[in-house]
Amino acid sequence: MDELKIIELRESIFEDNNADAELLRRELTEKGTFFINLMSAPGSGKTSTLRALIPLLKEKFTVAVMEADIDSSVDAEAIAETGVKCIQLHTGGMCHLDADMCRQGLRELDCDGLDLVILENVGNLVCPAEFDTGAHLNMTILSVPEGHDKPLKYPLMYESCSILAVNKTDVLPWFDFDMDKLRDYAAMRNPDIEIIPVSAKTGDGIAELAERIIGRVSGHSK
Amino acid sequence: MDELKIIELRESIFEDNNADAELLRRELTEKGTFFINLMSAPGSGKTSTLRALIPLLKEKFTVAVMEADIDSSVDAEAIAETGVKCIQLHTGGMCHLDADMCRQGLRELDCDGLDLVILENVGNLVCPAEFDTGAHLNMTILSVPEGHDKPLKYPLMYESCSILAVNKTDVLPWFDFDMDKLRDYAAMRNPDIEIIPVSAKTGDGIAELAERIIGRVSGHSK
Repeated sequence: MDELKIIELRESIFEDNNADAELLRRELTEKGTFFINLMSAPGSGKTSTLRALIPLLKEKFTVAVMEADIDSSVDAEAIAETGVKCIQLHTGGMCHLDADMCRQGLRELDCDGLDLVILENVGNLVCPAEFDTGAHLNMTILSVPEGHDKPLKYPLMYESCSILAVNKTDVLPWFDFDMDKLRDYAAMRNPDIEIIPVSAKTGDGIAELAERIIGRVSGHSK
Repeated sequence: MDELKIIELRESIFEDNNADAELLRRELTEKGTFFINLMSAPGSGKTSTLRALIPLLKEKFTVAVMEADIDSSVDAEAIAETGVKCIQLHTGGMCHLDADMCRQGLRELDCDGLDLVILENVGNLVCPAEFDTGAHLNMTILSVPEGHDKPLKYPLMYESCSILAVNKTDVLPWFDFDMDKLRDYAAMRNPDIEIIPVSAKTGDGIAELAERIIGRVSGHSK
């Protein structure tokens, strides 16, 4: 395994993040690189879901991952074990990533020849949803232990994502989690959101989630 | 049950939040009101832990709760059922509360005769830790399903809190959660942090947590 590259992000100087994000998205589309922004609360299982997904995504695409964290590089080390290119982004205390911060990471990754780059955003249901990263697809994970009421409390996260993976379904018997209510609450925020129950631990639902992602990436590059 | 009071918070105009927080803390001390800022990730169980604690705290003190959320009032309704005074603060999308926002809530609560006010902050491990709310005690909850690595990833949260409740211990058998590692990682951030394992669901550890809180409140008012 190559040594893990750690990038200390600089605060962005761009005033208009939305315009910058549009520009980044166009640049990536021209290069043929599809960019996914994966968000969730801390501990929902972003890294373990990615570890389960990567073997399936790798069969179709050249994949790389950017792991964003305030500090530490435990997640990037876990992802690097799957054999895909992975870099660690340190936000220096910042609670989210914007398009310019993603560009700093993408430059270090070098997107030439990459079909798919996945950003694991900072674990936070509030701020990351407010900043367009330039991604083609926003995806979120809600884990069963967090409860089915999260779309009521964090509206923007669910409004801004088009795929919602409900993780840790293996522990459903031990929690008062109501999947029907979750579906209702998520649909209140975003009627088009695709909800896919998964367990990164047992692998349940991972093939379906991979299929949805593959569909989006392939559909885009057509 | 009285009708639930919902306060739409205004953005603060104070430039120096630290000075404002110090001022608020002094004002509350003079009134004899102890103020606790309870923080955690979304879904760690802040509301259910409070619901378990309140009957024990009520035996000693006059208690009130401020429930902060971006939207919705499901938590305030759950707290109001315990019979303590409770108001809902809506942050209008903001990811944290500062001292002036707390002052707006405290004014509506009317602290005269209140021994203890607990703020349930927005579910977020990043931003709330950056803002002094004027509280006398910062407390955080980490739930077992989130994993023991959180102090590595969210350093400031653990540096800024003096009590850490480890919630959902009832599901320990179904998760790869290492309590010793959690203790080591939390101590790296804050060697003096008091760690109390609890289950809001079964009530395990709640009496001890209540005792620690009662000790802090009583110690302060001496």
